[in-house]
Amino acid sequence: MNWKARVLALDGLMPAIGDDGGLVWGTLADAPEDAELCFLGLDEGKACFAVVPPKGDASPRMANPRLWSLMATLRPDDLAIYGGARSLTDWHARHRFCAACGGATKLAKGGWQRDCTACGASHFPRTDPVTIMLVEYQGKLMLGRGLGWPEGSFSALAGFVEPGESIEEAVNREVLEEAGITVRDVSYIASQPWPFPSQLMIGCHSHADSDELTIDETEMAEINFYTREEVEAALAGNGPFRCPPRHAIAHHLMQWWVKR
Amino acid sequence: MNWKARVLALDGLMPAIGDDGGLVWGTLADAPEDAELCFLGLDEGKACFAVVPPKGDASPRMANPRLWSLMATLRPDDLAIYGGARSLTDWHARHRFCAACGGATKLAKGGWQRDCTACGASHFPRTDPVTIMLVEYQGKLMLGRGLGWPEGSFSALAGFVEPGESIEEAVNREVLEEAGITVRDVSYIASQPWPFPSQLMIGCHSHADSDELTIDETEMAEINFYTREEVEAALAGNGPFRCPPRHAIAHHLMQWWVKR
Ligand SMILES: [Zn+2]
Ligand SMILES: [Zn+2]
Repeated sequence: MNWKARVLALDGLMPAIGDDGGLVWGTLADAPEDAELCFLGLDEGKACFAVVPPKGDASPRMANPRLWSLMATLRPDDLAIYGGARSLTDWHARHRFCAACGGATKLAKGGWQRDCTACGASHFPRTDPVTIMLVEYQGKLMLGRGLGWPEGSFSALAGFVEPGESIEEAVNREVLEEAGITVRDVSYIASQPWPFPSQLMIGCHSHADSDELTIDETEMAEINFYTREEVEAALAGNGPFRCPPRHAIAHHLMQWWVKR
Repeated sequence: MNWKARVLALDGLMPAIGDDGGLVWGTLADAPEDAELCFLGLDEGKACFAVVPPKGDASPRMANPRLWSLMATLRPDDLAIYGGARSLTDWHARHRFCAACGGATKLAKGGWQRDCTACGASHFPRTDPVTIMLVEYQGKLMLGRGLGWPEGSFSALAGFVEPGESIEEAVNREVLEEAGITVRDVSYIASQPWPFPSQLMIGCHSHADSDELTIDETEMAEINFYTREEVEAALAGNGPFRCPPRHAIAHHLMQWWVKR
């Protein structure tokens, strides 16, 4: 038995950042006596934990500007650890009560479950499947800028898979709702977990039947079609629009499209 | 304005079945005064609703034998309507309280959301992504019989995608956990919603590196490898094992494998 353990330093849901630009780790002694601890995994022979904060993310389905700046600065390995820790501790903080009976829940199975102290029901972290889709028309790629995104930032359209839908049906509905066009020949390309708060991103390619758009102005600010050369230049940092960050699946999908 | 509406007849979560073997529909007058009504959609110009029952499914992650017999007898269109209605009303019945604050929640947006009457948080039905995988080794297909399944019934292995995993990582982990072997070249084949209680089934194909199994006996009763001829005969109803029902994605995946 050894007691080698480290605890991720968090201020609520945001990470402490050290002088070297990386995550900061403390010891179990730093955690409050009654803290709920989530086991994150082993790293270099040490058990890694994170403490559930008093409050979760009030708008977990919204993009958070502070998160985007973190994504641009944290190293990929630190970002993966922080993403997993944030996703899990946020879920705990937002599930202190049982949805079935209203009773108090307590952390179980090292942080991968919560059990109700009143009715005994077990609750599990949720992962929401989201489709993100390349839409192609006559050799050009359709990309959109969401409401509230910075001027010049474009990415692939995306949306939650709704109950009762297949992946292919979700792609069709999402493009029809946001851009007003129908697509065909939906094919799967790649998937990636996305921990803000907890999605499974499912990347697809499709062909549009038209480029006559009817844009949903409650969701999207702009939708444009770009040539292969324009997308390639944007990925290299000198195109007509700003691309999603390198670790986002949208970036990977756009690279796939340019190369094939 | 017209008041054409019909309400699905349910006994708890189970459907009433008419003399013709189909679902039974009543009118809004049949629903209790204070019933929570979920809007299912329009059918032949009539709005279709289902009433949230007093209790949800106590073990929503478990297979329910009464459901399997329904699947064998209901017509596909009735099964789709019932599946959607069951999934949604079960979610409502199991989420009468707010996980964030313990307050009472009430149905909103026609049944596609619940709002907390205390803290105002909105809650959405969840869909759990599940991978289901064909595993091939030297031209044979690996199929398993889960604990508690009838003797002779085999299907593809399946498991929930866990937070932090891609689809491909989930397939690898699941096969390693249940069968003790590694797989490579995971490819996506098809997806299907499965409303018992609410999954997105993601069907994949993969190649095993070995057929030397280490079976997880807490999950699986048997795992066997079958030739193309044996699987084809089983799909036709006269093979060495019983196949999953025609409307399950496992059946579709096995047909895909036999035909390609
Ligand atoms: Zn409870
Ligand atoms: Zn609340």
